[in-house]
Amino acid sequence: MRWTVHGERTLYDSEWLGLALVDVELPSGERFEHHVVRFPEPAAATVVRDPERGILLLRRHRFTVDSEAWEVPAGRTEPGESPEHAAIRETAEETGWRPGPLRSLGSFHPMPGAVDQTFHIFVADGAARVGEPDEDEAERVEWLPVDEVRTLLRDGSITDGLSLVALYRALDE
Amino acid sequence: MRWTVHGERTLYDSEWLGLALVDVELPSGERFEHHVVRFPEPAAATVVRDPERGILLLRRHRFTVDSEAWEVPAGRTEPGESPEHAAIRETAEETGWRPGPLRSLGSFHPMPGAVDQTFHIFVADGAARVGEPDEDEAERVEWLPVDEVRTLLRDGSITDGLSLVALYRALDE
Repeated sequence: MRWTVHGERTLYDSEWLGLALVDVELPSGERFEHHVVRFPEPAAATVVRDPERGILLLRRHRFTVDSEAWEVPAGRTEPGESPEHAAIRETAEETGWRPGPLRSLGSFHPMPGAVDQTFHIFVADGAARVGEPDEDEAERVEWLPVDEVRTLLRDGSITDGLSLVALYRALDE
Repeated sequence: MRWTVHGERTLYDSEWLGLALVDVELPSGERFEHHVVRFPEPAAATVVRDPERGILLLRRHRFTVDSEAWEVPAGRTEPGESPEHAAIRETAEETGWRPGPLRSLGSFHPMPGAVDQTFHIFVADGAARVGEPDEDEAERVEWLPVDEVRTLLRDGSITDGLSLVALYRALDE
């Protein structure tokens, strides 16, 4: 049975994220306020693969969790921008490679227990070099062979949920 | 190159989550305040599989994203509790099945761009019936055949990041 939402109050708001306390009632009758983090814009990731080069990945340190790992290019959409356009733009900005035609691999919710964010996943077969990687975004940018990416998925070297789901889904096609 | 963290200020705090503005400086010299959502406790999920029954899943509606989907049993750890103990406790509470010996399938960060949360994944081969499912947690609880779970992963019927990563990893062993 579903939880009933009676209302909510905003604790914080900004263009990046908001925080609310939502007044919910459970099927058992228990009623309480539940924290929800709201992201006004979704994010989008691209698995760029090329029969010769492999898969395009970034090596990136995340200060929030003090962890460095391989990731797929990704970022949030701008207001009014489509997820597909954001996926192309972020890939080009972060890696210097503009991905070829994109195909959707669906979307998912990274933390639906407490966060309303949606992540969109795209795949592109190939990319064209259009510039240099953004030094603010990545330690380095590399094409890695598909077999090596499968190993990275198994041995725990890829540690963010968006890259994990995007790569598993792309390799599961 | 890494971002430099100069300090932070707390915007909100609670036993469930906190919100901070972190003063960061990029390699290019750009400096700004970045929102970070802090979760004081990690969460843990269990992929429970049985050669006869299949994989144990819950059908659950998430009001945060107004979406109903299949999920693996999961929940946050209590203060001082190990992720493994939380995985066993949450599975028993949510499904009425107590999982057999657990094995770690690693951990990951669901949203390291803005959230410091860690999700731990375990797998158990088998479970013992110990009670009834919690009516507040799930519409229904079912064992689904592994082939059907593979189909659910492909067709977009599993929509939360923790279930996706846990199931892909368990089926990729």
